[in-house]
Amino acid sequence: MREAAVVGVGMTPVTARSGKSLSELFVEAAKEAISDAGVDRIDSIYVGNMMSGFLENQEHLGALMATALGREGIPAYKVEAACASGGVAVNAGVKALLSGLEEIVLVGAVEKMSGFTTAEVTSGLMMAEDRLKVGSTGITFVGLNAMIAREYMHEYGVSHESIAQFPVLCHQNALDNPKAQFQKKIGIQDVLQSPLVADPLRLLDCSGMGDGAAAIVLAPKDTAKKFSDTPVEIAASTVATDILSLYQRPRITAFEATKRASENAYKLAGLKPQDIDLIEVHDAFSVLGVMALEDLGFADKGAGTKLLEDGKCARDGEIPTNTFGGLKARGHPVGASGAYQVAEVALQLKREAGKCQVSGAEVGLSQSVGGIGSTVAVHILRGMN
Amino acid sequence: MREAAVVGVGMTPVTARSGKSLSELFVEAAKEAISDAGVDRIDSIYVGNMMSGFLENQEHLGALMATALGREGIPAYKVEAACASGGVAVNAGVKALLSGLEEIVLVGAVEKMSGFTTAEVTSGLMMAEDRLKVGSTGITFVGLNAMIAREYMHEYGVSHESIAQFPVLCHQNALDNPKAQFQKKIGIQDVLQSPLVADPLRLLDCSGMGDGAAAIVLAPKDTAKKFSDTPVEIAASTVATDILSLYQRPRITAFEATKRASENAYKLAGLKPQDIDLIEVHDAFSVLGVMALEDLGFADKGAGTKLLEDGKCARDGEIPTNTFGGLKARGHPVGASGAYQVAEVALQLKREAGKCQVSGAEVGLSQSVGGIGSTVAVHILRGMN
Repeated sequence: MREAAVVGVGMTPVTARSGKSLSELFVEAAKEAISDAGVDRIDSIYVGNMMSGFLENQEHLGALMATALGREGIPAYKVEAACASGGVAVNAGVKALLSGLEEIVLVGAVEKMSGFTTAEVTSGLMMAEDRLKVGSTGITFVGLNAMIAREYMHEYGVSHESIAQFPVLCHQNALDNPKAQFQKKIGIQDVLQSPLVADPLRLLDCSGMGDGAAAIVLAPKDTAKKFSDTPVEIAASTVATDILSLYQRPRITAFEATKRASENAYKLAGLKPQDIDLIEVHDAFSVLGVMALEDLGFADKGAGTKLLEDGKCARDGEIPTNTFGGLKARGHPVGASGAYQVAEVALQLKREAGKCQVSGAEVGLSQSVGGIGSTVAVHILRGMN
Repeated sequence: MREAAVVGVGMTPVTARSGKSLSELFVEAAKEAISDAGVDRIDSIYVGNMMSGFLENQEHLGALMATALGREGIPAYKVEAACASGGVAVNAGVKALLSGLEEIVLVGAVEKMSGFTTAEVTSGLMMAEDRLKVGSTGITFVGLNAMIAREYMHEYGVSHESIAQFPVLCHQNALDNPKAQFQKKIGIQDVLQSPLVADPLRLLDCSGMGDGAAAIVLAPKDTAKKFSDTPVEIAASTVATDILSLYQRPRITAFEATKRASENAYKLAGLKPQDIDLIEVHDAFSVLGVMALEDLGFADKGAGTKLLEDGKCARDGEIPTNTFGGLKARGHPVGASGAYQVAEVALQLKREAGKCQVSGAEVGLSQSVGGIGSTVAVHILRGMN
């Protein structure tokens, strides 16, 4: 069976107000990826995005982006799964390539959140939950995540102080990433003393609003070296879902979709968690970053913060985590974040991560979450050197 | 290489006011398709939809529908390309199956247009065009299609009367389809005397607003007979794009994307237009139906209406067209229509088209259009008896 490899990577900086349109953002990332791959030919485009219909009254991003890129003619369409849109767009691109119908595939994911009020964006984010049964109650997306944080702290006796290590780590890593939205060191007390957003979550527990786009070019693994000296194999691309709404799940302090997607990915790649050299996880809220460490198999339930305490998630630790700053500090242009993660893992394995480089990394994993753990896309990448 | 086959088909009636939610519509069609296939196992779900984010403030339809169907856990996400969303969702499902990663794939497409004002839906449809450069002028989607109709009539010297044969044919065919929205016979004068919507397009030149969902179950061709006595091979599934906006194209009376997608499909299937026994084309507006006959290779440019005059598009003609009533009379729940078409072609080839049955049909083609010809999905299906 054919296998897929990443042969080109591109991304825009994540910024609060890019001053750029959706298509300008997309084209910037896509051109960088195409140039990185050194390809003329692109057979198809898969676009990840969550909110352009709601915020900008713009759909049909496939043809829009193909045109903006000067590539109209080829197959192009949008793929969406809320905040995991970037992750599932990569999955769609991988499947297209494995189908044998397309050879050189561009995946690009983009979100523009600037130019809208916080109320508008907050309302848009609730499209990830069941609008009729949950959105109608008035609860916000951060409110739902706050319920998880409260329950997690209660169930496992973990303090907010411990969880706050996660954003501190991300901000530390983002200091070395020139494309990160928040290149600013913070400490635990900064998190605990930042304004309350939805009890117990404070401002620095939450990712911000940003504009950004990330893109990758995929080619068959057996021809990948024609395009790149340092291609990166996609050893697994998996998606899993869970019951959409939090209130219907028996348990909210673990994401079954993360377990399902990652267990399937480990199986497809023939790997175990201990074989993974670095991870990029979906820390839209600090507690989600901690839960990801557990649900992906790197710590027992309730023990995720222990990894942080022991320094194991640092770039020189056992399982370097969110090495470019993660959603919290690199930034979280929601529908694009899953593609940023895959692009970042690829850069690490290509040894092109600059000051963010993890030394000796050969295998990396990304986890992209849509809604409150309702959809999870996992990718395992492996260097080909 | 693996090939795909349709082993189950389901669809709701198209109605102006279903009184059903988006997920109720989806589940109705999906359960019918799953029951038709007689499968317990579903590996993944691809959901086609255009407007739920804009109209209902609901995205994340993959996890929403997987949950509504009691199938949470499996991969599920949304695929969108404006009015071709149903068509590209089938394309995504086929690629997933051909990738070898999934065996039994459910594709379902759904649109709910009721409960909203005409102004809201009209605004939603403009998401298919470039919102910043075209939508901002205030022109409507029907207005853009009216420009095509005017230019087509001028360029080829074709009368409105000739073009009006298309909706007349569709309404005739829909009389035999119990799931059609408009089961009412009309004549050419009814079209020409119906209220003007956007000159020269009149009410009966235009498809209506409807709620509906259609679904198919896909399985590998080599195991398809395990699930269905009458499986239908997907001989080709193609997507093509064109420059997004009409004003930027050198010519507006032919859709290059239809030509590209169909030429590629004929090539993949090893067939020519004369090998096709029936077609389901995207007649959102009467002129588009006529243009499809030409762009798909069944008539020279400007000569599409001649086929209608000669009775060749009738169910007992040379190239039976829109045999269940097409978008005009079966109905056009926009993001679902492309899946209705594939389901209808499959029913014809399974010999399960009831009173709509075309006798002896072995190969059928569907054409689904997104925006003003900006994206086109073409499927060629072949009976396996």
